[in-house]
Amino acid sequence: MQGRGLFITVEGGEGVGKSTNIAFLERHLRERDIDLVLTREPGGTALGEDIRELLLRPRDEAVAPSAELLLVFAARAQHIARVVEPALAAGRWVLCDRFTDATYAYQGGGRELPVAMIRELERLVQGELRPDYTLLLDAPVEVGMSRATERGELDRFEQEQVAFFERVRATYLQLAEESSGRYRVIDASLPLAQVQAQLEEVCAELAACWGVRQP
Amino acid sequence: MQGRGLFITVEGGEGVGKSTNIAFLERHLRERDIDLVLTREPGGTALGEDIRELLLRPRDEAVAPSAELLLVFAARAQHIARVVEPALAAGRWVLCDRFTDATYAYQGGGRELPVAMIRELERLVQGELRPDYTLLLDAPVEVGMSRATERGELDRFEQEQVAFFERVRATYLQLAEESSGRYRVIDASLPLAQVQAQLEEVCAELAACWGVRQP
Repeated sequence: MQGRGLFITVEGGEGVGKSTNIAFLERHLRERDIDLVLTREPGGTALGEDIRELLLRPRDEAVAPSAELLLVFAARAQHIARVVEPALAAGRWVLCDRFTDATYAYQGGGRELPVAMIRELERLVQGELRPDYTLLLDAPVEVGMSRATERGELDRFEQEQVAFFERVRATYLQLAEESSGRYRVIDASLPLAQVQAQLEEVCAELAACWGVRQP
Repeated sequence: MQGRGLFITVEGGEGVGKSTNIAFLERHLRERDIDLVLTREPGGTALGEDIRELLLRPRDEAVAPSAELLLVFAARAQHIARVVEPALAAGRWVLCDRFTDATYAYQGGGRELPVAMIRELERLVQGELRPDYTLLLDAPVEVGMSRATERGELDRFEQEQVAFFERVRATYLQLAEESSGRYRVIDASLPLAQVQAQLEEVCAELAACWGVRQP
């Protein structure tokens, strides 16, 4: 019998190289014959991608922070029910570009919503589900913002000010400290080769731990 | 100084004549010089109407009931922050086509989600805000469904089965019993003239009560 899959999340602010590094992780895990589902939040389902579009689209009407928070969790509820839980239950790994830590960082840190409100929604929507392993790609805000700006048109989050992203980063680093057991922080301002050398180590560790967990 | 406005909601299942009767109420209240905001849920704001479209559009992917519930409350959070609270605080009346009682009826009764979950979200999103007066247009499910079907293409809710709408109706009637102080149930299967005679009474009562409340 197959054990439950590993749930791995990759977190980080704007322009820290999440896409490049997630693609690298995916390739290296698949090379080790890991049966992997690559997904993202907000999104990962048809409804979730529609919600993502609502969240990112710049609009004239100011969005109430609580409305933003509930949209994030609506997309998450669909994602868990349709993608994450079925995959983990079938013994597949889930590699997810952002999850609830991003909600603590963006809606809690960035928008300054009460942490208690996020925690309640986390419990309502996720029950006991938490990531097994979280990789935080961390870089100074200036570095990330200049990379994000180079990519062209800015979404509703990328249009925020430096102070917003400083709060996002500080919250991520605090979460990493509080949950050091499942977190690995990688300095994303290093040259890509050095970042990816660390990611290779991560893949080796995860595959080894998986081997041990298998019945 | 102007007092706080009255918050009036109109509830009911499919095809009970909500639109016609809300237009009638609106006209009769405006004739009494009530400064009124007419709005609806889900919707009432630009973001809320986008969410409404996501909720109603039939889709191949099954929507998790909890995702639907969170979408409803996301639209509500935006609606309260941008429309309902500012209007009430300015002494205007709000006449709203459906509110949280519809969530108890459709997502609680219809989808059979735990009432405790709805109650928690109600508290998180609304704080102390509740309608002052709720009008329930009630009709047997067969009557409503045949009227809804005549209107043409069915949305994601209208495509549900009779048992779903029986649960919706039963929940509405139960809410009306539990909160009889703010509820008035109108038999919407009566001829329109008789329904509207009752609505005229309602307008007179509300305007009288408003006169008393004014400083």
